[in-house]
Amino acid sequence: MLAFIACGERVKTLALLPCRRLGRGDTAIPATLESKRMRQRTCLAIVLAAGEGTRMRSALPKVLHPLGGRPLLEHVLTTAKQAGAPDIAVVVGPDHAAVAATAQRIAPGARIFEQRERRGTAHAVLAAKPAIANKSDGNLPDDILVVFADTPLLRPETLAELRAALADGAAVAVLGFTPIDPTGYGRLVMRGGELIAIREERDASAQERLIGFCNGGLMALAGEHALAILERIGNANVKSEYYLTDAVAIARDMGLKAVAIETGEDDVRGINTKAQLAQAEAVLQDRLRAAALEAGVTMTAPHTVFLSVDTKFGRDVTIEPNVVFGPGVTVDDGATIRSFSHLEGAHVGKGARVGPYARLRSGAELGPDVHIGNFVEVKAAHIEAGAKANHLAYIGDARVGAGANIGAGTITCNYDGIAKHHTDIGAGAFIGSNSSLVAPVKVGDGAYVGSGSVVTSDVPADALAVARAAQTVKEGWAKRLRQLKAAGKKKPAEPS
Amino acid sequence: MLAFIACGERVKTLALLPCRRLGRGDTAIPATLESKRMRQRTCLAIVLAAGEGTRMRSALPKVLHPLGGRPLLEHVLTTAKQAGAPDIAVVVGPDHAAVAATAQRIAPGARIFEQRERRGTAHAVLAAKPAIANKSDGNLPDDILVVFADTPLLRPETLAELRAALADGAAVAVLGFTPIDPTGYGRLVMRGGELIAIREERDASAQERLIGFCNGGLMALAGEHALAILERIGNANVKSEYYLTDAVAIARDMGLKAVAIETGEDDVRGINTKAQLAQAEAVLQDRLRAAALEAGVTMTAPHTVFLSVDTKFGRDVTIEPNVVFGPGVTVDDGATIRSFSHLEGAHVGKGARVGPYARLRSGAELGPDVHIGNFVEVKAAHIEAGAKANHLAYIGDARVGAGANIGAGTITCNYDGIAKHHTDIGAGAFIGSNSSLVAPVKVGDGAYVGSGSVVTSDVPADALAVARAAQTVKEGWAKRLRQLKAAGKKKPAEPS
Amino acid sequence: MLAFIACGERVKTLALLPCRRLGRGDTAIPATLESKRMRQRTCLAIVLAAGEGTRMRSALPKVLHPLGGRPLLEHVLTTAKQAGAPDIAVVVGPDHAAVAATAQRIAPGARIFEQRERRGTAHAVLAAKPAIANKSDGNLPDDILVVFADTPLLRPETLAELRAALADGAAVAVLGFTPIDPTGYGRLVMRGGELIAIREERDASAQERLIGFCNGGLMALAGEHALAILERIGNANVKSEYYLTDAVAIARDMGLKAVAIETGEDDVRGINTKAQLAQAEAVLQDRLRAAALEAGVTMTAPHTVFLSVDTKFGRDVTIEPNVVFGPGVTVDDGATIRSFSHLEGAHVGKGARVGPYARLRSGAELGPDVHIGNFVEVKAAHIEAGAKANHLAYIGDARVGAGANIGAGTITCNYDGIAKHHTDIGAGAFIGSNSSLVAPVKVGDGAYVGSGSVVTSDVPADALAVARAAQTVKEGWAKRLRQLKAAGKKKPAEPS
Repeated sequence: MLAFIACGERVKTLALLPCRRLGRGDTAIPATLESKRMRQRTCLAIVLAAGEGTRMRSALPKVLHPLGGRPLLEHVLTTAKQAGAPDIAVVVGPDHAAVAATAQRIAPGARIFEQRERRGTAHAVLAAKPAIANKSDGNLPDDILVVFADTPLLRPETLAELRAALADGAAVAVLGFTPIDPTGYGRLVMRGGELIAIREERDASAQERLIGFCNGGLMALAGEHALAILERIGNANVKSEYYLTDAVAIARDMGLKAVAIETGEDDVRGINTKAQLAQAEAVLQDRLRAAALEAGVTMTAPHTVFLSVDTKFGRDVTIEPNVVFGPGVTVDDGATIRSFSHLEGAHVGKGARVGPYARLRSGAELGPDVHIGNFVEVKAAHIEAGAKANHLAYIGDARVGAGANIGAGTITCNYDGIAKHHTDIGAGAFIGSNSSLVAPVKVGDGAYVGSGSVVTSDVPADALAVARAAQTVKEGWAKRLRQLKAAGKKKPAEPS
Repeated sequence: MLAFIACGERVKTLALLPCRRLGRGDTAIPATLESKRMRQRTCLAIVLAAGEGTRMRSALPKVLHPLGGRPLLEHVLTTAKQAGAPDIAVVVGPDHAAVAATAQRIAPGARIFEQRERRGTAHAVLAAKPAIANKSDGNLPDDILVVFADTPLLRPETLAELRAALADGAAVAVLGFTPIDPTGYGRLVMRGGELIAIREERDASAQERLIGFCNGGLMALAGEHALAILERIGNANVKSEYYLTDAVAIARDMGLKAVAIETGEDDVRGINTKAQLAQAEAVLQDRLRAAALEAGVTMTAPHTVFLSVDTKFGRDVTIEPNVVFGPGVTVDDGATIRSFSHLEGAHVGKGARVGPYARLRSGAELGPDVHIGNFVEVKAAHIEAGAKANHLAYIGDARVGAGANIGAGTITCNYDGIAKHHTDIGAGAFIGSNSSLVAPVKVGDGAYVGSGSVVTSDVPADALAVARAAQTVKEGWAKRLRQLKAAGKKKPAEPS
Repeated sequence: MLAFIACGERVKTLALLPCRRLGRGDTAIPATLESKRMRQRTCLAIVLAAGEGTRMRSALPKVLHPLGGRPLLEHVLTTAKQAGAPDIAVVVGPDHAAVAATAQRIAPGARIFEQRERRGTAHAVLAAKPAIANKSDGNLPDDILVVFADTPLLRPETLAELRAALADGAAVAVLGFTPIDPTGYGRLVMRGGELIAIREERDASAQERLIGFCNGGLMALAGEHALAILERIGNANVKSEYYLTDAVAIARDMGLKAVAIETGEDDVRGINTKAQLAQAEAVLQDRLRAAALEAGVTMTAPHTVFLSVDTKFGRDVTIEPNVVFGPGVTVDDGATIRSFSHLEGAHVGKGARVGPYARLRSGAELGPDVHIGNFVEVKAAHIEAGAKANHLAYIGDARVGAGANIGAGTITCNYDGIAKHHTDIGAGAFIGSNSSLVAPVKVGDGAYVGSGSVVTSDVPADALAVARAAQTVKEGWAKRLRQLKAAGKKKPAEPS
């Protein structure tokens, strides 16, 4: 069973451009040692979530827009935790109670700080000054990570690289990337393996504009120097704002070392518009699809399959084109999900066949070798081994026993206008087509319900239940109807 | 509310390569002044629609094939009108009555001219000689635009650029583009900001073949010179055809000025095959998607959403993967359209939730907060605020009152074999699952229909209606059935 | 009517890079002469199918994974036959009975050889030594083709080029290609139009690594020299394996000629992982889509339409976005397949309209002008001219006569728990909505079934059949129910 953890370890193998520390040489430290070294250091992640996001043109705060079914903020908080930052500070804007609430739901221990006025990134970071100065226990954090809540594709191993740079003695470590077109980005000016400046495009010399290595925005600061550096950042610029990028020059002025870590563009992909949100979703989906293929899932057309970060697949699973997996789906070994199926909060048992056009909703629990066919909806229902519901049916709030056969058009009438009720169908039962099972109702093991019946009371095991009217025939009636139609007349009432 | 007007103003921002007049310098004239200047000039658009389109391998004339749900011809006529050409001449081939009829439906004032024989583009243009010479009121048009009915992605601002070139004194203005591979295209030979020749590849020197700037086919002619230029075009070439491209050399011979306007390749993308039609649809869809994203629509996977040129979205609309919008759809603020939904001629109210697998057909009018769920079809029906039809239902020719609940499997039986009839469901009514409402029928406000009922007469407000047979049970019958099955026998009749 | 033959003649026109014999010059031999020349030569194809395929992470042998609905092995066997190789040898691994069985089902005359140990490609080829030495009739084959069962996109015309090289005197002909990045591939070292060596990357000089022309793996050997060459291949290398690539150097040592044929990368695209399988499917689908467009099929969004290698289309067929064609589908002239439809083993008659959301299963036979609408499933049923089933229905094991109208929600109850039974609906019959037709049952021509009826016995022609209960109404009941609900009480039983 393979679990997709968003931005997690498995995804690492998919990165086209692994993280690379410039000037570090080839003497890579084994990951396990590295990870042990990190565990010995304390870490504070400051998540900047105060942006207004006006370009999203939405009433929803930007960082609460979903990506892969989860808010942007959740991705970043999860990544920070995975990178070993147990201490988290979230900086929110004024009137962003919803952002604060979401942050505390995802990271219950997170401290929330409000940035009242928007006066630049360094100003935002300093909103979390109590966390940086760590007034709670007096010990400064070893590592401080500054991340952005609108940069959700960041991977934990990238943060780990930034932290390793601090452990190696840097006071400032900046995340850089090499875009196809660097125009508009701040350039990272390197010398002798050290970062000597972040030069904004407007301030860059012609020579510096040729630099392709650009500022990705994320930064790590050594806890012992962080406050001193941050408080020296001024606002003597056109916009009178406090820019975090000034930390590099200030650190060097203070005789400290700054470095840059190179990563792929996706890691630093910020989201300001709905188009960028869609691009990030495409990157995330491609990561998830690649991991699924790598794990052996067969997909005829991976780009038409939409996954969630928590979708889990067994061995020899087949997924046809055009399938949507919402959150909370597990598919066991050998199961097949056919085209145009839609699954959320569902478990598909071994060897089960689902779709085409099957909708599994929350609480759909399919046992081994179950068949759920076209235009069938299953919700909060346990369908036991080998049972079948192949056509046009609604199975909600129900148990369907092993080997039972649910005919086309069957509806479990689970709602009576007041409450939802349960339908229990026994093992080996046969529910004739177009039947209505009015819950609460129980159909016993091996019972048989005649087609078109409305079952309102329990059916004993092995019994037949029929609830339908006798057929009456009126000869020649239809012929007369057509004559009336030809004459432009109305249809007479049918005899009842 | 944002309206997508095909090829309209909004789309302008999406063009990767804005129109650029070669040799015009940086002294751009403000758009508003430009537009005023254009309004003072008369304009005739000649739409060439006489091509046979044999490579489409279709019985339908090429220019009537739909793109974004509208005929190619309609796109070009709409663009011509948007570019300020109130006077339109359409040149059709022999036996193209359907093309002429479509042109007159879209542009009622358009004059139709027939090109009897296909003897080249200049010959086609001259089929519209009465419009060029303007025999109706004797005044020559200031500007003449020659456009092709099979080049539907042309934007009105591109035509406006051609017209502005005429206003600036050119007698001929040609639309050019720079394809990735210029092989096969006529090259635009420029000198000193003027167009001195259009050189076909076979006639081009080695030097000229290095030119990347190519002829896009579309041309604007100054009305005062047009006829003189066109009538001097000869057919002394291999195919004995009259080529419009000769107009450039002739104009220069006459001491007149020719210029070229550069545009993106899409503007001049001609359609000759079904593959090219599909490519043009892809471009159009990307324009529409980009405009929707720009306006703030959230789309998980924009490339799986198909829009029409008239699709309208409110604020904070969410669209899941795999949704098709046919013509005539409006989606209000905060509504969500879930995966695998298909909408045509429908209105989705504020905060409504549609799908997955919902089909809204013509006349589906959903009020605020309505829920339409999986495998539900709505046609010519007004679903009032907060009403729900969540599963497997057909609601046609109906009103569903506010807050009513339509159970799974409900069918409005609107057709009796002679005519369609109306179903009226009152506010707050509860329609039990698998019910049939035989129209014309009225279910009063707050009424309750028992599951599995066939309702044939009106149900008073607040009443219960039940129309189903009593349940009979035959103990042990199903067990005996299985014994018969095991013995290879037939099923006995069910007792009724 | 156009048939798509996988990798067949039609596809030829789609190859971006046609096969090209290096050093052959421009004196192409006309294809018809070439084909005649080939028919005069005998040919043995050795299909290597012994790979373990562990990277597929599947219990299914690699070469049995489906591509375009057919096992990889079937593609290669079909291509070999189309290239004129009547004599086929398949080399399978130990415990690959399923592979052998599949090979013999597809190519009944194929001889199966087992490679007990995996000791290299030349060792695998020699597992088929009895076929190479042709002990059955003593005549050596003229041409021997060595192909791989996991290289399914190979086209027959590419194999024909290899064979032509043998006919022109080469003892060894190797298939080469020019990947974007040659790193990791063996390089084809050419001199004077001849192939002088295949150099593995690790053995290549810096100069040789600059060569972009790479070994595609496939090879043709002259039958008269094949055994001598193959038996001289040694295993004096790091892995102690016998490499087929050594055949080039050995042939040259023997004074024989080796050549290379260039082809596109797809032809030699091997499949080792699920990701590569998905890529191959994408290539195959694009070939099929391009052929359909070329034949005049209208597809709004070709990349969302999934075809099978045997899908057949008439003239003026329209396919909307998101349609899946499984195996065995034929669509006649003028038919329209709307979005979200899924077809397998079905025939769609002239001018018929299918979908959106129609599922046609095996044995669905639609006559001319039939309409099958949303959420309708048709299986093993003949729907005759002009009949309609537009909404939410299951038509299985049935005949629906010409012009009949099947109401929304109609179910043919074809299974009684023991066997499947037939429903016969006469021409012009009207089946009211939500009816259940309990098979075996016959509804006569022009008969009328009232909505919501459960029809259990035959209905005479022109008669009316109704089988539903009378409606009873209980005034005020629903109002009291709401009062109970407000009071937190349970719903009382409905009166029956």
